[in-house]
Formats: sequence, structure tokens, C-alpha cells
Amino acid sequence: MPKQADRYAALRTRLVDAAERTIAERGLAALKARDLAGEAGCAIGTIYNVFEHLDELVLCVGSRTLAMLEAALGAVRSKGPYGSAEEAIADLVRLALAYLDFAARHQVRWRALFEHRISEAHSLPDWYVEQQQVLFQQVEGPMASLMPGLDHDRRRILARTLFSAVHGVVALGLEEKLVSLPLLDLREQVAGVVRAVASGRDELCSEGEIPLRLS
Amino acid sequence: MPKQADRYAALRTRLVDAAERTIAERGLAALKARDLAGEAGCAIGTIYNVFEHLDELVLCVGSRTLAMLEAALGAVRSKGPYGSAEEAIADLVRLALAYLDFAARHQVRWRALFEHRISEAHSLPDWYVEQQQVLFQQVEGPMASLMPGLDHDRRRILARTLFSAVHGVVALGLEEKLVSLPLLDLREQVAGVVRAVASGRDELCSEGEIPLRLS
Repeated sequence: MPKQADRYAALRTRLVDAAERTIAERGLAALKARDLAGEAGCAIGTIYNVFEHLDELVLCVGSRTLAMLEAALGAVRSKGPYGSAEEAIADLVRLALAYLDFAARHQVRWRALFEHRISEAHSLPDWYVEQQQVLFQQVEGPMASLMPGLDHDRRRILARTLFSAVHGVVALGLEEKLVSLPLLDLREQVAGVVRAVASGRDELCSEGEIPLRLS
Repeated sequence: MPKQADRYAALRTRLVDAAERTIAERGLAALKARDLAGEAGCAIGTIYNVFEHLDELVLCVGSRTLAMLEAALGAVRSKGPYGSAEEAIADLVRLALAYLDFAARHQVRWRALFEHRISEAHSLPDWYVEQQQVLFQQVEGPMASLMPGLDHDRRRILARTLFSAVHGVVALGLEEKLVSLPLLDLREQVAGVVRAVASGRDELCSEGEIPLRLS
């Protein structure tokens, strides 16, 4: 008879598997504790013996999505060292297009990453934050080459800013709510934004006057 | 006794008012036909006498949010004609910061604009698409000044691309999921992205090689 710890680990995996199927096929809104328990063969209450809360279970699925995304981005990067700014920019463009391709192919589970709002009572666990950071390091590499004078904290922030800008173009573009562009045109827009930001990168940190309107 | 058309118009307004309160305070997920009917003083089925479907009602609330946003953006623009590229860029920065401020102040109803997925059976009504277009014209003005050689369609697409990039930085920044930045720093990031894209604008339309990976 397996030890309790082994049984718990096996149950965790079955629950994450079940949640992953639901999230990948039907999205976050379709996730119900009752269905998960049924699929994993346990009582509903038992879920909370192996997970602190349902948010933790959703984050475990998110972690699998992040790992898939990391593999997809890692596969297209040249990783440097870069012989020129153009090479670093080309790597940023490849990363952004790989992000678009990933989002288009795995739209339902990718949207779940951003739709999931962790309850205010809980905080994002360290292991999840670290996994996000590893992902962003792929962007930070070429950014470091393009902006060698930048300190580490600033570079991390700018890598996230560039990611967020690309994410916006991808997310609204795939919605086809704001623009009905064929995917090929969307690729041109994503590549264009990355090239424009990279080319105007000195402005990213410019300390121009910013009108204060919020208290 | 008022005519039926008047009574219908009054009921429509009461229903949109009720839906607006819910969406602005508790978000799209809290919207239930039963509650709306109760608040507006009609039977559930009667909702569908005055609205084709619940999506139409949600779009009417979205229209009010878009009108608020249009007023907020209109209030900060200098509207040109611009004496220099710097003046046009300054207007784009003001628009982007006003967008951030609007999103931060009206976060719940602003998120509802993007969370709402219209059912596949329905299409976005022309009046809503036109209202979105009027909003984008605020961005197209300074873009036209910055990129005078651009044809109208291309300019519209690039205005949406710039909006989407700003939206991404605002949306993920306000989430504080990816970066925990105080709002002031987020303002710097938003302004920086707009200045960088504007400064590197020639790259937006560059026909650089884009690797094709999607079939």
C-alpha cells in the first residue's frame, strides 16, 4: 500500500490533469470543483487536502502553460552573443512572433493565464513568480545587448514593458474586436511594434515631462 | 397612457441603467437577467422584447463606457494642427496617459469592455463599431501628422496597433501580476512606450523579413 504522501502526490497530478483538460478545451469559466473531483475520483472536500485552495490548482495548470510557452520561445531564439543591434532586434522579433503563434494555437489556455484573478486572500506563490521571471529572462537577454548601460532592475522593468506592449497587440488582434486583420497582417503589426520600440529605445527611459493627474 | 414605443424606450433605459450599475460596481460576471428584471421592474422575458439578446444590453453599457472614455481623451488633446513632430508625439503621450488614468479610475467597467465576448451567433452592431472608430480617430489625428505619407487604411491600422500596445502595458500594469509598479512608474512606462514607438515609427511599416510559421 503506497504511503499517504505518494497517494497525495498522485491525486494532485490527477487533479491538475483534469483541470488542464478543462482549461485547455473550455476555458477557466468551465472549471468546477465537482467535475474535477469526479474526474480525479475523489470527494470534493479531498481537493482541499491536497491543494490549499482552487487558485493553487489553477496556478499549477498555469505553470504547465508557462512551461509550454517557455519551450516555444526558447526554440526560436539565437540566444546571442549578438554581433550587432540588428541581431538582438531580430531575436526580439522572433520571440514576439513565437508569442503570437503560441497564443493563436493555444488560445483558450493562454487566455486563462490572464483571466485568472487570484483571490485577494491569497498571494501569488514564489515558485510561480520565479517561473514568470525565467520566461522574462528570454526578453532581457536581447534587451541587455541593446541597452548595455541599463542597470538590472531597469532592464527587467523594460523587458516587461516590451512584453506587455506585444501582449496587447496580440490579445486585441486575436480578439478581432478592434481590427479584423488576417493573422499574417497581425504578424506584421507585432514585428513592426517590436522594431519600432527597439529602434526608438532611447525614448523608453527618457525622463520627459509626465503630467501628473492622479493623486 | 404613453404609447408602447415610449414605454419600451423607458424600459430600455431602466435596464441599461441597472446593467450599468452592476457592471461598474461588480463587473460583467455579476450580471444576471433575473436581477436586471427585478431592478427595472419587468418580467425576465420582457427583457427580450426590448433587446434582441443580453449581448445587446451589455453593448449599450459598453457604449456608455466608450462615451466616457472619448470625453476623457478629448479633454487632454491639443487637437493640432501640430507645429512639429514633438507636438504630435506629446499629444499621443497625453492620450495614452489619459487612457491609463481612465482605466485606473474605472477599472471594473473598463475591464468589462474587454472581457465581454459577444456570442458567435451575433455580430457587433454597426453603431458600436462606429463608436469605436470615432474613439480611434483621436489617435489617428496625431499619427497622420507624424506619418503624412501613409494612406488612410494603413494609418487606421497603425493607430489601432499603437492603441493595443498601450492597452497591453496598462492592462498588465494595473494587474500588478507581471510587475508591481506604483502607478507613477506605470505612467513613465506608458509614456516611454509611446515615445519609443513614435520615435521608431518608420519601422512600424518596414517590410522586413517576417518568418512564416503558421499555416
